[in-house]
Amino acid sequence: MKKPRICTIGSHSALNILRGAMDEGFSTLLICKKGTAKFYESFGICNETIEINEYADIYDIQAKFDDCIIIPHGSFVAYYDLDRLMKEFNIPIFGNKRMLDWESDRRKKSELMKAAGLRLPREFERPEDVDRPVIVKHFGAHGGQGFYIARTPEELFQRINATPEEKEKPKLIQELIRGTNIYPSFFRSVIRNRTELFCVDRRYESDVDSSLGVFFDESNPTFTIVGNYPLVLRESLAVQVQKDGENFIDATKRLVPPGLNGAFCLEMVVDRDLKVYTFEFSGRIVAGTNFFVPYSPYSYVMWGEAMSMGRRIAREIKDAFDVGRIDEICF
Amino acid sequence: MKKPRICTIGSHSALNILRGAMDEGFSTLLICKKGTAKFYESFGICNETIEINEYADIYDIQAKFDDCIIIPHGSFVAYYDLDRLMKEFNIPIFGNKRMLDWESDRRKKSELMKAAGLRLPREFERPEDVDRPVIVKHFGAHGGQGFYIARTPEELFQRINATPEEKEKPKLIQELIRGTNIYPSFFRSVIRNRTELFCVDRRYESDVDSSLGVFFDESNPTFTIVGNYPLVLRESLAVQVQKDGENFIDATKRLVPPGLNGAFCLEMVVDRDLKVYTFEFSGRIVAGTNFFVPYSPYSYVMWGEAMSMGRRIAREIKDAFDVGRIDEICF
Amino acid sequence: MKKPRICTIGSHSALNILRGAMDEGFSTLLICKKGTAKFYESFGICNETIEINEYADIYDIQAKFDDCIIIPHGSFVAYYDLDRLMKEFNIPIFGNKRMLDWESDRRKKSELMKAAGLRLPREFERPEDVDRPVIVKHFGAHGGQGFYIARTPEELFQRINATPEEKEKPKLIQELIRGTNIYPSFFRSVIRNRTELFCVDRRYESDVDSSLGVFFDESNPTFTIVGNYPLVLRESLAVQVQKDGENFIDATKRLVPPGLNGAFCLEMVVDRDLKVYTFEFSGRIVAGTNFFVPYSPYSYVMWGEAMSMGRRIAREIKDAFDVGRIDEICF
Repeated sequence: MKKPRICTIGSHSALNILRGAMDEGFSTLLICKKGTAKFYESFGICNETIEINEYADIYDIQAKFDDCIIIPHGSFVAYYDLDRLMKEFNIPIFGNKRMLDWESDRRKKSELMKAAGLRLPREFERPEDVDRPVIVKHFGAHGGQGFYIARTPEELFQRINATPEEKEKPKLIQELIRGTNIYPSFFRSVIRNRTELFCVDRRYESDVDSSLGVFFDESNPTFTIVGNYPLVLRESLAVQVQKDGENFIDATKRLVPPGLNGAFCLEMVVDRDLKVYTFEFSGRIVAGTNFFVPYSPYSYVMWGEAMSMGRRIAREIKDAFDVGRIDEICF
Repeated sequence: MKKPRICTIGSHSALNILRGAMDEGFSTLLICKKGTAKFYESFGICNETIEINEYADIYDIQAKFDDCIIIPHGSFVAYYDLDRLMKEFNIPIFGNKRMLDWESDRRKKSELMKAAGLRLPREFERPEDVDRPVIVKHFGAHGGQGFYIARTPEELFQRINATPEEKEKPKLIQELIRGTNIYPSFFRSVIRNRTELFCVDRRYESDVDSSLGVFFDESNPTFTIVGNYPLVLRESLAVQVQKDGENFIDATKRLVPPGLNGAFCLEMVVDRDLKVYTFEFSGRIVAGTNFFVPYSPYSYVMWGEAMSMGRRIAREIKDAFDVGRIDEICF
Repeated sequence: MKKPRICTIGSHSALNILRGAMDEGFSTLLICKKGTAKFYESFGICNETIEINEYADIYDIQAKFDDCIIIPHGSFVAYYDLDRLMKEFNIPIFGNKRMLDWESDRRKKSELMKAAGLRLPREFERPEDVDRPVIVKHFGAHGGQGFYIARTPEELFQRINATPEEKEKPKLIQELIRGTNIYPSFFRSVIRNRTELFCVDRRYESDVDSSLGVFFDESNPTFTIVGNYPLVLRESLAVQVQKDGENFIDATKRLVPPGLNGAFCLEMVVDRDLKVYTFEFSGRIVAGTNFFVPYSPYSYVMWGEAMSMGRRIAREIKDAFDVGRIDEICF
């Protein structure tokens, strides 16, 4: 097999992924929407760039990059229909394809987190059962948009019954935990057979994180993701969170064999008693890792060299290529 | 021409600037107020230090550093009178001197941002026209001090009419956008003919960013800058912000030829619909870049090596010196 | 003397300390509670690991690591009784043993900070004297737990008289300053005879730092430390804070000769007029330094190479070992 090129879609964490690929000696290809190539090329990280009009255009041009491995990221699932991808796309994708299925279904997501023994916020099947502040998430909502919070049962009924459309939408009603959010990212290495704590961030959201909130009606803030703050965890929490990451991987081995590989993130909230709740996960690289280029505190402790999540992914591919095990980490 | 030394004034981002100069192989000079030399010298970044009693003393000692290029920073304009600088100061200053003029005038500032096609918060000529929360900025105010916010027209009139002095002061009345702040920094390179996204931060202000705000009367928080938080942007926002930076440079080329060169910052707020408003700019290195020593995520992606804003400035001077174009980047 | 190994207890900032030791070429030993060795070993930073059932078990196994220097950290004092440590522990500990005594007593702590000429929040001997918002800290409380805030004298009396136990507990009643917190960390080097500003962070606390606070009853937030945010200071504040650090060291030389050596942190709040109050100190490495692996902006400016606090400690030990002065930096 010829050494593969590394390719990603121009969005989300493409800067991180392509720089990491270059640092590991890979040739890179960026596929992006018309008008954004200039941005990525200005960073000097694209050996080749292909601009497309619509994301779906990649199906027609596969022959142009059949020497590539695709690194999916948080926007990937949003852009690409899973079924079509499975049927019509022939380029190897880094990760476990069965995870995509579990991740796109809120109920399966919860099932997997529970199977891992993680502590979840309570979920309410029926609005009638709600007796505390809750967050309501539409199935398939992305990037914090389309979420809302209800402090009381009354508020919840009001929101749900606001329109017939809202009433019918499938939704997850989840207990809102009073605490602070942490988003630890991990890397599951098949080749080194270990789960590595990589970094921790916190989202920066408009307008709930505005320092000027006091000047507005604060009762209805929104959660549109604008960026990410870097964090470091209290070390005793890091120990616990690492166990949660390992337990999560074990659960994916049982329920989604051979299990998740590559980057993932547990989305957590820590309460005043240091109890950690996991309310969501992402089965691939998240934008919070983008701050930690070229270093995170945890990745430096582990590697003693520059190691971003993008580079970690590329290192895994390089390791796998060297020992002839690429097929175990792509689908 | 002999290789120049790099000099700055001891304040604001001098640590960043002098370390960057050293990393690029320049000899450095720090000019600082009596009593602060020790601080800077303790970092081992000053080949020479000159302590002065008053900032204005630099005019009298120019012969001592006529082999230098001065790197101005955010405090520079505050300390030095532009007219006098133009007439009596003979040392080359990194940047475009005509920008200083545009930057010190709030109306010209707005004109330049509008010419760049940036989305600005609405500005109100007359208090009578105000129909929403606004922020009032005195002309020439610095570092967040002397700003105030009025939630309602009533509050605005009360503040404006509080004293005859306040009433007379020239002021900018700007719509207060509900959203989260981002401060992207850029470097405009004349030598490489490109505009580089360098880093993003958010200010940390007393006392509006206190986590103990809930224990005090929150109705009148202040905006004194204490420091800066580092951030990374949602990548789709980074693409947009980069375009804004390039459009801004194009506007300076038309209105302030040959245009801004070196570091600059757009001060922005992102609302819940990811609309980006620019409410201010700085035409030189800002303190938010000081966190990103020796790396920012964006500078590492671009350079693949340690690259702070201080070092980027020094690299530009070195590049210009090597090709005999120093006169294009200094005035 | 044989080159020592570096040892710490598995908690708090052990990742930082052990990676730093390795980077300076030391062999490392980790002593940790059963069940946590795996976490530390996964980072590849332990040449040897000893798991113990109880922290007190270290007294019995001293012969196993009598070639070590122990690096204490924030959890160390919490785990180990000072008296017993003095009498029964024979392994050299990095630092000044007399500092432990001063640090464990809230009144002595205040005395030392006052002797350094630092600006302290007002302390109230008697609840009757309180006329403003205060924070009440139990003697010996750790990690932000067991603190509470009273906005008014009425609230204070209510809290104090809530239970007979609460009434009797020795406590510090301290003025609550309206402002933003900063936690600058320093390194006091005996070998290089200087006090180095190392980094600045801000704590991330549950649930006072929740961005969802608006959805809960905000009147009684808690201060459980979950992690740390990195910050950079306004440079004029950094100059002042560095002076405070040096004055603090001078005070320890007078009151606790030969004075503090190694890492320390001043816990400060900056008000709207940029007045800096010190409300607490830590006489050893704090968790806020854990973000700054392998770099902090300040350490890079000073060293021009990777320098975490863990590495700085190891560098000091190496320097001392090379010149035969280990006995001056350990007890």
